[in-house]
Amino acid sequence: MRSLANRLDLCSINTATLGHREPLHQVIDRVARAGFGGIAPWRHEMEHADKRAIARQLRALDLKVTGYCRSTYIPAADTKAFLSGIGSNRAAIHDAAELQAECFMLVVGGLPDGSTNLHGARRQVAEGIAMLLETAAECHVKLAIEPLHPMYAADRSVVNTLAQALALCDELDPDRRGHLGVAFDIFHCWWDPLVEATLVSPQASGRIVAFHVSDWLRNTRDMLLDRGMMGDGVVQLRRLRELVERTGFEGLVEVEIFSRDDWWQRPADDVLSTCAERLQAHC
Amino acid sequence: MRSLANRLDLCSINTATLGHREPLHQVIDRVARAGFGGIAPWRHEMEHADKRAIARQLRALDLKVTGYCRSTYIPAADTKAFLSGIGSNRAAIHDAAELQAECFMLVVGGLPDGSTNLHGARRQVAEGIAMLLETAAECHVKLAIEPLHPMYAADRSVVNTLAQALALCDELDPDRRGHLGVAFDIFHCWWDPLVEATLVSPQASGRIVAFHVSDWLRNTRDMLLDRGMMGDGVVQLRRLRELVERTGFEGLVEVEIFSRDDWWQRPADDVLSTCAERLQAHC
Repeated sequence: MRSLANRLDLCSINTATLGHREPLHQVIDRVARAGFGGIAPWRHEMEHADKRAIARQLRALDLKVTGYCRSTYIPAADTKAFLSGIGSNRAAIHDAAELQAECFMLVVGGLPDGSTNLHGARRQVAEGIAMLLETAAECHVKLAIEPLHPMYAADRSVVNTLAQALALCDELDPDRRGHLGVAFDIFHCWWDPLVEATLVSPQASGRIVAFHVSDWLRNTRDMLLDRGMMGDGVVQLRRLRELVERTGFEGLVEVEIFSRDDWWQRPADDVLSTCAERLQAHC
Repeated sequence: MRSLANRLDLCSINTATLGHREPLHQVIDRVARAGFGGIAPWRHEMEHADKRAIARQLRALDLKVTGYCRSTYIPAADTKAFLSGIGSNRAAIHDAAELQAECFMLVVGGLPDGSTNLHGARRQVAEGIAMLLETAAECHVKLAIEPLHPMYAADRSVVNTLAQALALCDELDPDRRGHLGVAFDIFHCWWDPLVEATLVSPQASGRIVAFHVSDWLRNTRDMLLDRGMMGDGVVQLRRLRELVERTGFEGLVEVEIFSRDDWWQRPADDVLSTCAERLQAHC
């Protein structure tokens, strides 16, 4: 297991951690100045930016892009909407390639409006990812299926456990061609009674392509926007990182904290210095 | 699969559904008057009541007690607190016997204050239930392990999936002596990619001793107190009841809805008539 002590070059900041309060080029400068080795931007930030200039800036600062966030939701009420989502995701995969992102984050989506067909939505997700794999291969971009916490199953993701995400990888990419993997976020997966056994299984070997940290707070007040800073919650972060790295993961440790009422209210540089300290002390 | 049409005798009301707004004896009368065949009361309601009088009232009205809610949390920071919890649960099992309850609900508890030892808490739960099984056998009361949604893993229950609860049953009661089972609540388990396969597995056969319905709302606003009325959310209730009944479950279908800002604001008789209608239309 790698030591993170004095190794901020092994650590990355998801821009959501800073609350999307300033333009992307400023966030990039700030993260680089704080000494981090990577960053993970969002598509809505890129919409207001010059993509080529951002790509040049990232390379000039030697910042890795640990992930490009995130997919348009895949399950849809009809074929037209489904294909529109696929088209949008294909365009985003091209942008991920321009950013030389380690992966394109697949937050796959919940149930289509009005639907209760959970099984059908999960089948649509498999079908949609299969269609995106071709684009991913052309663009030399990895797709990272991110299992989201079960509390998001209706609205944001019908993929809810590590084992389920890995089974999708096996189904869609049995020959392990190198363009499909899983993003493991401790916030989403920490509670799972099967998570340790799954991480040490052969199925997980080589499949983890992104690793996100934050913490789960006791008495979480908001289902979406109350994630904790590492060390403030109940997750055994170091233990999980050890198991993730045993799968062969050699990427950066990415901090992703949605925290509307706490961390998003603090000065960005304070948040970054706290991230740096806590990554080394707790992860 | 049983039909619930004109069979309110197969349906039960957990008193939490009415928001705990009046004394238990009044709630019992109200639920019986509405035609339901069962009720599930809470310990804090019994504290203010004459237990023998309540037991007599229930029998006079021919109301089944589909569950007695609920256990003192088991994981504890030290042995003294652990044993105190066990003592409290033993006393409650005696009360469940006096009420002739179908089962005593085990909501097992989250991580002890200050602890991040999820594995240790899960081991304490197994140890605690093993200690309670003796009392359960003496009192002829079934213990119902209720897996709670993963969003409660830190604070309320470290048992979070049906498969995990069934594995605990196998571990603690391999000979199936008849005093240990699982409470299956659709709110907690609907999202689980393994739930259907688990329900049809031999492991589940004969182990489901309670079945709770409500619904999962899109954009749930509160992690604890925003459950939906059956039919207002995304859960395929009839499909899950079918699978639960295939395990051999022959008990009543119990409605348990925590809904501070919606159903708890409505007149109790309106809530009961809506429950009756929705049970027949959606469950």
